[in-house]
Amino acid sequence: MTDVPAVLERLRRTTDTIVGEQDLIDRLASGRRLRIKYGVDCTAPDLHLGHAVNLWMMRHLQDLGHQVVFLLGDLTTRIGDPTGRSETRPTLTPEEIEVNAASFLEQVSLVLRTEPDVLEVRRNSEWYGSMEVATLLGLFSQVTQAQLMARDMFRDRVAAGREIALHELVYPVLQGYDSFAMDSDLTIVGSDQLFNEQLGRHFQQRLGAPPQAVVITTITPGIDGGPKQSKSLNNYIGLTDSPKEKFGKLMSLPDTLVQTYAHVYSELPLELVAALGEAAAHGGPPARDAKLKLAAAIVTRYHGANVAKAERAAFTEQFSHRGVPADLPEVAVKTSRPTILELLQAARPELSNSELRRLIRQGAVSIDDRKVLSHDQPVPLTEPVTLRSGSRTFHRVVADV
Amino acid sequence: MTDVPAVLERLRRTTDTIVGEQDLIDRLASGRRLRIKYGVDCTAPDLHLGHAVNLWMMRHLQDLGHQVVFLLGDLTTRIGDPTGRSETRPTLTPEEIEVNAASFLEQVSLVLRTEPDVLEVRRNSEWYGSMEVATLLGLFSQVTQAQLMARDMFRDRVAAGREIALHELVYPVLQGYDSFAMDSDLTIVGSDQLFNEQLGRHFQQRLGAPPQAVVITTITPGIDGGPKQSKSLNNYIGLTDSPKEKFGKLMSLPDTLVQTYAHVYSELPLELVAALGEAAAHGGPPARDAKLKLAAAIVTRYHGANVAKAERAAFTEQFSHRGVPADLPEVAVKTSRPTILELLQAARPELSNSELRRLIRQGAVSIDDRKVLSHDQPVPLTEPVTLRSGSRTFHRVVADV
Repeated sequence: MTDVPAVLERLRRTTDTIVGEQDLIDRLASGRRLRIKYGVDCTAPDLHLGHAVNLWMMRHLQDLGHQVVFLLGDLTTRIGDPTGRSETRPTLTPEEIEVNAASFLEQVSLVLRTEPDVLEVRRNSEWYGSMEVATLLGLFSQVTQAQLMARDMFRDRVAAGREIALHELVYPVLQGYDSFAMDSDLTIVGSDQLFNEQLGRHFQQRLGAPPQAVVITTITPGIDGGPKQSKSLNNYIGLTDSPKEKFGKLMSLPDTLVQTYAHVYSELPLELVAALGEAAAHGGPPARDAKLKLAAAIVTRYHGANVAKAERAAFTEQFSHRGVPADLPEVAVKTSRPTILELLQAARPELSNSELRRLIRQGAVSIDDRKVLSHDQPVPLTEPVTLRSGSRTFHRVVADV
Repeated sequence: MTDVPAVLERLRRTTDTIVGEQDLIDRLASGRRLRIKYGVDCTAPDLHLGHAVNLWMMRHLQDLGHQVVFLLGDLTTRIGDPTGRSETRPTLTPEEIEVNAASFLEQVSLVLRTEPDVLEVRRNSEWYGSMEVATLLGLFSQVTQAQLMARDMFRDRVAAGREIALHELVYPVLQGYDSFAMDSDLTIVGSDQLFNEQLGRHFQQRLGAPPQAVVITTITPGIDGGPKQSKSLNNYIGLTDSPKEKFGKLMSLPDTLVQTYAHVYSELPLELVAALGEAAAHGGPPARDAKLKLAAAIVTRYHGANVAKAERAAFTEQFSHRGVPADLPEVAVKTSRPTILELLQAARPELSNSELRRLIRQGAVSIDDRKVLSHDQPVPLTEPVTLRSGSRTFHRVVADV
């Protein structure tokens, strides 16, 4: 017997809105195995923690016996869901789509269970590949031009004086009909998919099927505090990042994001989430400890407790001694009394002199943990020194005279 | 060798505009057999003289060796070209479409030649029936939402706050692609089809084919002087009307339309057309003679000179003697000195007294060709009289005492 309130409470931790909530409650209570639509566009995937929020909710439902239907939109990918950014997406070949689909499944299996009774893999070419034009036109008769143009992204395009190609206009119809064709009970998506998935409800009702519920998940900021994680902004934690990368990126998180990340990306109890948020607000060592706990919790989720423990130990060890890692790359200079600029030129040959001077002005350069202020300040090298140039770049500098 | 200027001059007699005129001139000059798209919706046909204007232009081109491709839009009929009037057309079954298609061919053959080298019959289900959804979406990518919404009928709908279903929005795309699929060189259509056929040019160009020319024909008024012939207004001369019906309807034409009808619907030399117009402007017997010539010319076109001659003779005989037909229905009254109203009551039992009085007030009632002015005027029936009530209603009235 499903404990419906418990399931809902769990989902709500990372849910913004539920469309058709009563439908969902009734179906969960029915004890029937639900079919959860997880539709993806087969462009090259690079799933990150933000996507995983949805996947973890599905995983929870899988653990209760429900079935995720992983729908590869191989037909619709040949159009591409129109975005606000670009007018037209590059068209993918069937071969590229297959490569991307395989990669998608691999990444998804980092969170989802893959036994056939809880994960069914489908492609929408199964129905669109053999659908007659007349049938498609019949679907078109179920929706109006005005209904489609109400999509905010289309309105934005019109407002910006940009064109909407007809194949883009019909994309939501196809994504919507998918829900009918695959008997979706529920789908868990970001708010950008709400319009298309509501069309799914529309088609299911028009065609005599019960409408799917639509769970819209919370959007969380990028690791730089930007509005969301995104590949193009390089402010995301990828599911395929190594445990070390995940741990390191989480340790670089702004203090203000610790509580949100703990709430959305971990399963830590909510009291502990609140406590971590409070600690992070203090800054300094309490914030650092809070991040260690957060990073360990998230790495545990993906790679297990042992890996997380090892990463935490490695991180702590590396950045012990006032945050300076133990095993620094060594740089030798040919004088025993170089200027700061000369040291930096040796350590950071990839930067120009003006970039190096900027680092100094920004206060990002220090010698043995003392900030330097002038590029021509001399540095006596009677003993090796630790040069810091930027927040996580350290070198050990020795005189080689 | 085609005499291009002569062909163009002939077409221009009933042409409003030619889109792609130079394309048409070049192709006529090439000496190649042109393919003329004649696309129809397979709703129940009832072709009239207005439609025949286009057909006669095609017939002329057939006579020069060009080929009409009669395209039954059997697939697109299942959508229906949206009109300004109704939001959605009734959907036809495949059986209804076949019945209508057969009837269409029959009516068309009243004007067009039907030998296979000058008349090819195609159906657009030939290409849409086997077209994949992905291919259709590819076509959709060649046109924008804004391009389609520019169609005046769609704009009118929006202005009137009425909906446009998505299948209606895509209809012009399908009609346009037809031109590519069937290698159309030329199509001859009414102005309501200009938008769709220009999309035909668009698709041909996008897909690497030479664009068809589009001849837009002149629109002529209905027999009542209304803006155009239309079944719903019952102001048209049908191609399947009998010679007698055609002759009679043309004789009832307003004098002011004689010249236009002669210009557009007959092949009479233009000097004669002008002369008929002048005669009609005089009214009375000259106008009547002009109509007799016009009616004879048009009936000749469809049924041959002998039939036309016979109809003209029959009409003249029937309405000789100051316009009174020879074989009148007889009405007997039980008194030898009835009033006008009593006579009318006997002759026109289908009309109410107030309707009869209105006829008298309108001057539409006469006895032996003398107009009567009062409903209680007595009529001595020592001999039978001819009662006229309305422009073409006559009775012979006798006393039966």
